Amino acid sequence: MLSFNEYLGQVNDAVAAIEYPLQPAGLYEPIEYTMSLGGKRVRPSLVLMACDAFGGNVADSVAPAIGLELFHNFTLLHDDVMDKADIRRGKPTVHVKWNENTAILSGDAMLTMSAQYIAKAPAAVMPAAMNLYNATAMEIYEGQQYDMEFEERTDVKEEEYLNMIRLKTSVLLGCACKMGAIVAGAEESDAALIYRFGELIGLAFQLQDDLLDVYGDEKTFGKAIGGDIMNNKKTFMLIKAIEMSSGDDHAELLQWINAVSPDKAEKIAAVTDIYTRVGVKALAEERIEQYSKEALATLEAINMSEEGKQAFRAFADYLMKRNK
Amino acid sequence: MLSFNEYLGQVNDAVAAIEYPLQPAGLYEPIEYTMSLGGKRVRPSLVLMACDAFGGNVADSVAPAIGLELFHNFTLLHDDVMDKADIRRGKPTVHVKWNENTAILSGDAMLTMSAQYIAKAPAAVMPAAMNLYNATAMEIYEGQQYDMEFEERTDVKEEEYLNMIRLKTSVLLGCACKMGAIVAGAEESDAALIYRFGELIGLAFQLQDDLLDVYGDEKTFGKAIGGDIMNNKKTFMLIKAIEMSSGDDHAELLQWINAVSPDKAEKIAAVTDIYTRVGVKALAEERIEQYSKEALATLEAINMSEEGKQAFRAFADYLMKRNK
Repeated sequence: MLSFNEYLGQVNDAVAAIEYPLQPAGLYEPIEYTMSLGGKRVRPSLVLMACDAFGGNVADSVAPAIGLELFHNFTLLHDDVMDKADIRRGKPTVHVKWNENTAILSGDAMLTMSAQYIAKAPAAVMPAAMNLYNATAMEIYEGQQYDMEFEERTDVKEEEYLNMIRLKTSVLLGCACKMGAIVAGAEESDAALIYRFGELIGLAFQLQDDLLDVYGDEKTFGKAIGGDIMNNKKTFMLIKAIEMSSGDDHAELLQWINAVSPDKAEKIAAVTDIYTRVGVKALAEERIEQYSKEALATLEAINMSEEGKQAFRAFADYLMKRNK
Repeated sequence: MLSFNEYLGQVNDAVAAIEYPLQPAGLYEPIEYTMSLGGKRVRPSLVLMACDAFGGNVADSVAPAIGLELFHNFTLLHDDVMDKADIRRGKPTVHVKWNENTAILSGDAMLTMSAQYIAKAPAAVMPAAMNLYNATAMEIYEGQQYDMEFEERTDVKEEEYLNMIRLKTSVLLGCACKMGAIVAGAEESDAALIYRFGELIGLAFQLQDDLLDVYGDEKTFGKAIGGDIMNNKKTFMLIKAIEMSSGDDHAELLQWINAVSPDKAEKIAAVTDIYTRVGVKALAEERIEQYSKEALATLEAINMSEEGKQAFRAFADYLMKRNK
């Protein structure tokens, strides 16, 4: 096994080596731009690591890994159009830098390009790789659909929310882990287990994201604290708080949600306080711990070298402690 | 060989049999709606016919054929968003019936679904089928990009225009023909030739479309005559007329193009007249004849039964005479 950074290094080399046709520039430049915005390249690195851990040829896993990274960035491109987001990683989004038609069309091209990279998997495993990739893509669209629908509802249950974040973000982590296993020719049962590991760690990570948006340290977290509260974003925190609060707490929470132009610092402080009082902070920490533990237990059951398992434990550690 | 209608019948059955998940309805209903809008199903029918003509198992070609039809309809869905078109086949477009986010996301899901159908091709031929499909998709996006760019230019040359329509519409006909050949296990040289046949017939068809929009009979053509003239759409007709006219004709043409609120009947009559006077009508008819002849000559060179070739000749006839 290599260090995570060594897998990352191979991924970065491969991303830099992606060849974009020169014409039409208007179609391909926005794709190159999107891939240049950076990102931690976690998903493709996981593909290589999983392939290695299951005794496969890491070089064979690079193209499918790049396919997943292209796919992930395509979802961000189209999501930014749907969410009307102007900035991503401190830079203008594609529909702002160019226009909306470009964002739609270049996104479509990115999606097809990603499939072309998946198709470069070794012939014996390509059908399985392609089927996993396509099925995962459909789940991600379903997650995005639920996410958009939930914004219009006030009665979203915890189970629905968890399923939505599972579909929208966790399945891609599961897919990345399983993709590496498939390329390595792992047993289906082990491939399914490493998928579940990735999915569970993804759930823990997203819940932690929801928690840290309220309780995190601005410098470590990388973005302003309280953004979700200001946007009334239906995170685990808000959903559980609505559900778990009663009497005055409940009334106060609803007031803050419906306030037209509340003072920012006041609202954030007040809602954060309600979350703590009502027990949502403690519950979120409990859920995160639960998912992390389940992920590690799932890992244990896999037929994999101890060295391989240690790499995945270290990755889980990195992912869950990165933001604190 | 069967009649074209018999291939069409199998395609219609397969389209009706497409299974859409029930949830989330907001993601899948727009896809089902799009596929229900109808259409002549020419592309998937060609897949089956080509497979049969090359001695393949037609049943094996159905899933890839449906993949191409799903793909084609996905391009219409996203194109309608980019072109801001409110109506398709007399019904509201998806972004009108639902909203733009739905049109983008359901389109993405359609694209992935289409790939899932291509992936159902028999294992031995699936990689070739997938590579052809992905490469064709990239060309179609390039064609759409050029189409959008040309709208902003006044100096588009004939060669650029022909390349744009080749990419935007003809390559998919080529792809449909070649897809059937691939499923049937045809020789690569023959597969390439039937591709070229499809591409050339596609070019002839699109040019005929440009011609008939000016000179066609409204009842047979299925839409109002003169629409392209009113929209100053950069068709073969307009591009060549700008290029071939001089003196008073040229000045008059530019005046009509730049006229702010011209009388509809007047503009159509005047521009149609210029087209005829300047020789554009004759030239278009010549190009159409040229491409049709080249398509038939290409067909001759293929290692295919006379019965198979006759089916393709009949198809070319149907496509080129349908609108007259």
